Amino acid sequence: MWKPDRKNDQPLYQQIADDLERRISYGEFPPGSLLPSERKLAEQLGVNRSTVILAYAELRAIGIIESRTGSGTRVSKFKWGATPKHTPNWHRYVEGGSFLPNVPFLRRIREALQQDKTLIDFASGELASDLAPAQEINRLMEESSRTEYFGYDNPQGFVPLREALVSFLGKYRGIQTSASSILITSGSQQSLYLITQCLLAPGDAVAIEDPSYCYSLPMFQSAGLRLFRLPVDHKGVRPEDVRALYKKHRIKMVFLNPNFQNPTGRLLDPNRRSELLEVASELGLPIVEDDPFSLTAYDGVPPLPLKSDAPTSVLYIGSFSKIAASGLRVGWMVAPHSVVDRLSDARQQMDFGLSVVPQNLAAQFLMSPYIQPHLERLRMNLLYKRDLVIEALRNELRDLVSFTVPQGGLHLWCKIIPEVNDNKLLEEAIRNGVIFVPGSVYGSDSGFVRFTFARPKADEIVSGISKFAAALRSVLG
Amino acid sequence: MWKPDRKNDQPLYQQIADDLERRISYGEFPPGSLLPSERKLAEQLGVNRSTVILAYAELRAIGIIESRTGSGTRVSKFKWGATPKHTPNWHRYVEGGSFLPNVPFLRRIREALQQDKTLIDFASGELASDLAPAQEINRLMEESSRTEYFGYDNPQGFVPLREALVSFLGKYRGIQTSASSILITSGSQQSLYLITQCLLAPGDAVAIEDPSYCYSLPMFQSAGLRLFRLPVDHKGVRPEDVRALYKKHRIKMVFLNPNFQNPTGRLLDPNRRSELLEVASELGLPIVEDDPFSLTAYDGVPPLPLKSDAPTSVLYIGSFSKIAASGLRVGWMVAPHSVVDRLSDARQQMDFGLSVVPQNLAAQFLMSPYIQPHLERLRMNLLYKRDLVIEALRNELRDLVSFTVPQGGLHLWCKIIPEVNDNKLLEEAIRNGVIFVPGSVYGSDSGFVRFTFARPKADEIVSGISKFAAALRSVLG
Ligand SMILES: Cc1ncc(COP(=O)(O)O)c(C=O)c1O
Ligand SMILES: Cc1ncc(COP(=O)(O)O)c(C=O)c1O
Repeated sequence: MWKPDRKNDQPLYQQIADDLERRISYGEFPPGSLLPSERKLAEQLGVNRSTVILAYAELRAIGIIESRTGSGTRVSKFKWGATPKHTPNWHRYVEGGSFLPNVPFLRRIREALQQDKTLIDFASGELASDLAPAQEINRLMEESSRTEYFGYDNPQGFVPLREALVSFLGKYRGIQTSASSILITSGSQQSLYLITQCLLAPGDAVAIEDPSYCYSLPMFQSAGLRLFRLPVDHKGVRPEDVRALYKKHRIKMVFLNPNFQNPTGRLLDPNRRSELLEVASELGLPIVEDDPFSLTAYDGVPPLPLKSDAPTSVLYIGSFSKIAASGLRVGWMVAPHSVVDRLSDARQQMDFGLSVVPQNLAAQFLMSPYIQPHLERLRMNLLYKRDLVIEALRNELRDLVSFTVPQGGLHLWCKIIPEVNDNKLLEEAIRNGVIFVPGSVYGSDSGFVRFTFARPKADEIVSGISKFAAALRSVLG
Repeated sequence: MWKPDRKNDQPLYQQIADDLERRISYGEFPPGSLLPSERKLAEQLGVNRSTVILAYAELRAIGIIESRTGSGTRVSKFKWGATPKHTPNWHRYVEGGSFLPNVPFLRRIREALQQDKTLIDFASGELASDLAPAQEINRLMEESSRTEYFGYDNPQGFVPLREALVSFLGKYRGIQTSASSILITSGSQQSLYLITQCLLAPGDAVAIEDPSYCYSLPMFQSAGLRLFRLPVDHKGVRPEDVRALYKKHRIKMVFLNPNFQNPTGRLLDPNRRSELLEVASELGLPIVEDDPFSLTAYDGVPPLPLKSDAPTSVLYIGSFSKIAASGLRVGWMVAPHSVVDRLSDARQQMDFGLSVVPQNLAAQFLMSPYIQPHLERLRMNLLYKRDLVIEALRNELRDLVSFTVPQGGLHLWCKIIPEVNDNKLLEEAIRNGVIFVPGSVYGSDSGFVRFTFARPKADEIVSGISKFAAALRSVLG
C-alpha cells in the first residue's frame, strides 16, 4: 500500500490529496462512492487524523469530493466531463451477488495483519518461515528450470505430480490409489469448494463437525446447503450422531477432519473410527475426509486415514499447506473416477487448472530425498513450539485457561475460564501487538481461542502469550 | 494413462485385467459402477477389442464384474467384504450438482487430444511452444529462487506483481491504475468466473457477443444468468443493440472482447467504440472488457482498451495466456476498489489465492528486458503463421471456404461454404490427424470453423490444413 513519504518536500497532507485524486481518476473510487473515514485512512497511512482532515479539505476545495455530516465523505458525482455521466452503481453489484462474504472476524484479522506487520501472529493457520522447507524448494526451483512448454495443463492436474502422489500416499498414508483417481487442486480449500459446488445442490443437508473449520466457510451457505452439527468431544465425533442426522434430515454427505482436528486438535478414537465407517457403509453415505495435519503427529506415527479402510465411501483431501508451504497452493483429492472427471471438468470453468510451475515443484519435492528429513524436523519443531506455548500459558494464565494438550497439528484450542467478550479481547490483543482467532469463528460458544503456535517464530511465542495475557487481564478488568 | 506393456511376458489381456482389478480395489470404479465399453477401452489402451473382451471375461470369471446385454459391464456389488456394504451412489452425486458440465464438443476435443498426442492441434486457444518465452521464464526461475517464505499470500495478489502491472498497463495499454485496483487471478477465466459468481445473481440478464468465447462457458448458465446476444459483424458489436437490450431486458452487464475477438478476430470499430462508451455511461451500465489479444496486433500498434477512456464503467481483464504462457495461469482484473475487495474476499473461499511462485515469475518477466523483444518476436511469428494458414487454405480449399483476414490474435474464423455437419467434420478430421473447434461451440450456426494457427508449430500448418481439406472433401462426399 502507498504511504506518504516523510522525506519528501511536499507536506504530507498534499501528498495524500494527490494520491487520492490520482486513485479517484483511475476509477478506484468511482463518483458517488464512499471514501474511508478520516480515522481509518489515518490509521492505514500511519499519519495523524488532522493530516487526513487537511487532505480531504483540499480535495473538497477543488470539488472532487463532498462531505455530509453523518454520511461520510464521497467522491463528487458531476466533475467527470461536461455532460452528466453515470457510473455503474458498483455498490449495488457488490452487495447483489449470490456469493457470501467472509466471516467478519476473519476479515478483521486479515486487515489487522496487513496493517501491522509487527503483530505476533497466532491467527494464520500455517507454518512459520522457519518450519517451511524454503531452502529445499528454492534449490528445486533452480534445478527444475528446464520446462520446455508452459501450455494449458491436463485439467486433472500435472501427471508427474499425480504419479508422485500415488507413491507418497501409499508410503505415508496407507492409501492405495492410481494417478487417474487423483485431482490436483489449489489446496484443500478448492477441493472443498468443488465438492460443495459440483456434487451437492441447494437445499441438500450435510453434516459438519462442531466446532469446525467449515464454520468459517460461508462457502457452505453460498452453496445453499443446510448444515447440521456433529459435536466434537475428546474422542472426536460420535457415529450415532451421524446415523441420527441421516434418519432425521437425510444428510447427503459428512465433512470430517478426523486427525488433529482444526480447531480442537482432537483425534478420532479408533473404536469410533471403525463404527463410523460401518455406519457410512450401511447408509451408503459419503464422507469427505479433510486430512491436512496427520503427518505432523509428534510421535512420528501418523494416524491412518478413513480412506485407507473405506476406499469407495471416502473423498480424501490432502494438501501441502500445513506440512510444507501454504503459498504453493497445491492440494489433492482422491476420489472415484466419475467424481474426479466431473470436478476436473467443472474447474475448467472456474480457473482453467492450476499453474504448472508449483505443481512441478511439488512433484520434485515429493520425489526428492528432502521430504523425509523435512517431516522429521517439522514434527520436532512443532512439538517444541507446542511446549513453549503451553508453558507460557501456564506461567501467565494458569487459573484462567484450560486446554487439552494436542498430539499433532498446528493449533492449541484454549478455553478462557472467566466470561469474556470475544470482540473486546481480540481488539485489545491487537492493540497489544498479538493476534489469534476467536473460537466462535469455528461455531463454538464464545470464550474459546485458537492459538496457531506453528505460525510465530519460536522466539516470539513467550512474548506473544505475555501480550495476550495482558490483553485478557485488561478486558477482565 | 496406464497402457499395457507389449514387451512384458504377461499376455496383454491379463495385464489389462490386473490393472482393472487394482483400480476397482482402489475405489476408482466403485461397486455397481459402469466400466467403459469394450470398444472405448480398446481405443484408450491402443489394443484390439478382442483383447479387452478377454480381459473382461477374466474378471467376470472371478466375480469382480458383471455384464448384462444392453446395460454394459459393471463392477459387482457383493464382493467387497462379508456383509453387504453400500457404496455411495456416486453417479447420483455427479449428476446432482448445480454446476453444469462443459460443452460436449469441448469435452470431445480434450479427450481426443489426450488420446492422440500426434494430432495437429488447431483447437487449443494458446501459443505453440516455439512462440512462448519458455527460455526466458526458465532463466528467471533460476534467478528468482531466493524466495524466503512460501506462506499464504495477500488475497488480492502478490504485491510486486501488482506493482509491475501498474507500469505495464500504463506503458502498453494506456491504462492508469494503482496496485490497490488490481486483482490477480488464475487467468481471465477466473476473472470471468468471479464476476458471474459475486457481482450477479440468478435471474440477472447480461449481454454477450455472438459468436463469443462466452458461449463455450456453461459457467454463465450455472450462475443462472439470462443471456442475450449482441451480434458481431465486421465492425464488432452495434451500440444500439446494447441500448435495445437494456430497454427490453434491463441487462445488468455487458461482456465484450472488443479487440481481435475470440473466435471472429474482429476489431471493434473506433466510432462504435466511442458510441458504445456513451451508451454505457448514459445507462450506468458496466462493461466487462476481456482483452487477452490486443498486444498481438500484427502491425505493432495495439488498439486501445475501452478501459483507458472509461475507467469507472469498465472491469478490465487481462492475462498472460495468449501473449506468453497459458500454463502459468496468471491473469489480472482492474476494477473499482469495492469490486476488487469483494472478489478477493470471495476467492479466499474458492482457492485461497494464487500460488506465489508463478506470480513472482510473472512479475520478474514484466520487469525484465525480455518483455519487449518477446512481444515483437511474437507478433512477427503470429503474422507468419497466419499467412501460412491462409495460403494453405487458399491452395487447398479456395472455393469451399471464406474468411476475413485477421489483423491480430491467435485465430482464423473460417466459413465452410457448402453445407456440412459439424460433428461429422470434426470426427473425420480427428481420424485424419487434425483437430479444430467447430464454430457452434461459440454460439454460431454450424458450418464455421475456428483454426488457432498459433498453436501448431509452423511446419505442421501446411500438412494440418491438407488433412483438414481431405476430411472436408470426404464428408462432402
Ligand atoms: C481443516 C482444514 N481444511 C482445509 C484448509 C484449507 O487449507 P489449504 O487450502 O491451504 O490446503 C485448512 C486451512 O486452514 C484447514 O485447517
Ligand atoms: C476471450 C477469452 N477470454 C478468456 C479466456 C481464458 O483464458 P485464460 O484464463 O487462460 O486467461 C480465453 C481463452 O481461450 C479467451 O479466448
